Amino acid sequence: MVEEMKIGSFAEALSSKAPIPGGGGASALAGALGSALGQMVGNLTVGKKKYAAVEEEVRARMEELSRLSGEFLRLADRDEEVFKPLAEAYGLPKETKEEREYKEAVMEERLLAATMVPLEIMERAVQTMEILEILAEKGSVMAVSDVGVGIQFARTALLGGVMNVYINTKSMKDRQKAEELNGRAGELTAKGIKLADQVYGRVLEGLKN
Amino acid sequence: MVEEMKIGSFAEALSSKAPIPGGGGASALAGALGSALGQMVGNLTVGKKKYAAVEEEVRARMEELSRLSGEFLRLADRDEEVFKPLAEAYGLPKETKEEREYKEAVMEERLLAATMVPLEIMERAVQTMEILEILAEKGSVMAVSDVGVGIQFARTALLGGVMNVYINTKSMKDRQKAEELNGRAGELTAKGIKLADQVYGRVLEGLKN
Repeated sequence: MVEEMKIGSFAEALSSKAPIPGGGGASALAGALGSALGQMVGNLTVGKKKYAAVEEEVRARMEELSRLSGEFLRLADRDEEVFKPLAEAYGLPKETKEEREYKEAVMEERLLAATMVPLEIMERAVQTMEILEILAEKGSVMAVSDVGVGIQFARTALLGGVMNVYINTKSMKDRQKAEELNGRAGELTAKGIKLADQVYGRVLEGLKN
Repeated sequence: MVEEMKIGSFAEALSSKAPIPGGGGASALAGALGSALGQMVGNLTVGKKKYAAVEEEVRARMEELSRLSGEFLRLADRDEEVFKPLAEAYGLPKETKEEREYKEAVMEERLLAATMVPLEIMERAVQTMEILEILAEKGSVMAVSDVGVGIQFARTALLGGVMNVYINTKSMKDRQKAEELNGRAGELTAKGIKLADQVYGRVLEGLKN
């Protein structure tokens, strides 16, 4: 499990030529760190008189972030789990017509599984951003810079994820399905970049003044 | 040491209200992961006939990234080390004139130390981007998506770093020094965003086609 790996060992494994962990797992980790930073902001907000009016809402957002953080770490593992079956499928024989048809069907199924992981990372990255946007407004001003750092991590999860969607859909034979998945990834990218840049910009302006 | 922490424990510590690790340490970690992804691209390039002509250069870049990765992890530790003295300085008494002068001098010195860490993270983030730009062009096309993910991590290190520069310079009494540091941070931000977005955009276009 990625969660149990030491940071130095993860960075070393990432830097090696072994395909896992790779950009997909790293993107999931970025999401987990982004949501952890949001939880930190929440923890610095609740229990303070000044923020009593928003405490209930902030607590609800913290619970969502805690769930998201766990899901990102599980997606980092999942990214490794879907890799091996896909690599095996690439190695299937394709001498006879039957072999080719079988290989194509297996490849298609496993490419879809490998695409769903980064697409789920992207969905959760945008959800994390939406919560960070609320925390930028309602959370403790003392922790606003952590909202800014957190939203950059969520942005990396999103834009790391989309790369791994396109890599997998590129090899799919069902082009309609591939275009549908790329379309969803494109929507999330556009929405997430806009949101992340808006929230980051607001936080940065606030810090400068 | 951050390097020795398990990923799950780091995320949990990050999410707590304890000030360290916070956005500064997380930014340093983003830099380490970005440079690790660049090393992965290098490792997937060297030793391949197709890339024999660029092997020497790619190896040189990998060494630079390995050094940067280690420096980022040390900066994550350093970010924690400078925090305690600064927090202590905030707590110094300011009853008498002598106490106020002493406090101001100590604060100033420790704010500067706390500013230098994210500024060094920013410098190294841009250096990492410059190497990733070269790898986007010369590295294995099989690993190009990892360049794209890596440059997003470096971008997060940069934009997480600048938040932590501004937080600390904001409290400095020596406004000329503060503006000088903010100016350098602003230059790095502008240069880094442009570079990261260019490289990422090229990688993404290449993947789509």
